[in-house]
Amino acid sequence: MKHALRIVVIIPDMALGDDQEEHVQQQLERSRSLRMGLLQAQYDVVATLPADVFLSERIAQLRPDLIIVDAESEARDALEHVVVATRDERRPIVLFTNDQDTSHVPDAVAAGVCAYIVEGLAPQRIRPILQVAMARFRHEESLRAELKDARDELKDRKTIDRAKGILMQRQALSEKDAYDKLRKLAMDKGIKMVQIAQRMIDAAELLG
Amino acid sequence: MKHALRIVVIIPDMALGDDQEEHVQQQLERSRSLRMGLLQAQYDVVATLPADVFLSERIAQLRPDLIIVDAESEARDALEHVVVATRDERRPIVLFTNDQDTSHVPDAVAAGVCAYIVEGLAPQRIRPILQVAMARFRHEESLRAELKDARDELKDRKTIDRAKGILMQRQALSEKDAYDKLRKLAMDKGIKMVQIAQRMIDAAELLG
Repeated sequence: MKHALRIVVIIPDMALGDDQEEHVQQQLERSRSLRMGLLQAQYDVVATLPADVFLSERIAQLRPDLIIVDAESEARDALEHVVVATRDERRPIVLFTNDQDTSHVPDAVAAGVCAYIVEGLAPQRIRPILQVAMARFRHEESLRAELKDARDELKDRKTIDRAKGILMQRQALSEKDAYDKLRKLAMDKGIKMVQIAQRMIDAAELLG
Repeated sequence: MKHALRIVVIIPDMALGDDQEEHVQQQLERSRSLRMGLLQAQYDVVATLPADVFLSERIAQLRPDLIIVDAESEARDALEHVVVATRDERRPIVLFTNDQDTSHVPDAVAAGVCAYIVEGLAPQRIRPILQVAMARFRHEESLRAELKDARDELKDRKTIDRAKGILMQRQALSEKDAYDKLRKLAMDKGIKMVQIAQRMIDAAELLG
């Protein structure tokens, strides 16, 4: 890794909590220990943010490599905000929680959450967890890219085939001649075959 | 979950170790503690196997829902055997290791390893880890299925288009008429369009 991973940590909103209460104190301590562990492991913690309505905008500005959601409990609510904030541009999300309710795990995973570590986080475990999260994210992104390529190719092919069909019928060309004609037109205009095909379909619809 | 997950645990090969040695003792203890944790969490541990040349065959027979690789160190070697054993039929693999060398993490993830927990495994953490592993495996399998569908559709379409082209050229049909003819032939014979298309391509190649 050439540069340190740029990380945004999403922390629980403590505004309404009474910091004299024991469980709030514990949570603050845990949150501090996580951030210290990240800094000790040489990560670049670019921001620590609450999960609120400004999150999408801030993440879009900060463009972190990875988002850590530090949710002692009520992980579902915090995750919802983060999932919305990364809908347009997917990023690896690691959730640290002690929430015993794991009924929302499948949703979290489908939304791109890469790890989900319940209970006990020793600082020396942070690095392998984040490495796995990054590796898994990249692996899934490459699967998604393959899926997009296959679907795009299918879509382009349908468009080109429709245009070829128009040429074959209107100009009584063989399939090969229709294909060659489309390719030559695209080359002459310096655009992609699928673009010239789309123009031909649009024109045929206009002309009837 | 209706039935308990059926789990195979892959344990390190201790045959050559001296069980009086301290680290061997520690590893045996850790391995026992993991299996006890699984049983306490109501999982169905159907077998405990070493990572050897018989592994593929045994996994094919046992058909577990999930495979746990318990590798104190030398995780790479154990994983290699498991990856080979699940090449034909993918299964979720969870690796528990204390191996500090994480250079093979990306390979492990690409091979389908679903979690990778280094250091310290409390029994109460087993369930959420396995739940995430199952959820992630299912999520990735559904992505793979979508990818396969898109590629199959593309391949079928190419075959059908070739057959359509043959009909259009040889019988001077419009694209629509060629398509309708293929569809009718498929319906009459009670087979898929792609199959009749493939037969037509084969016949055209034979007849020249």
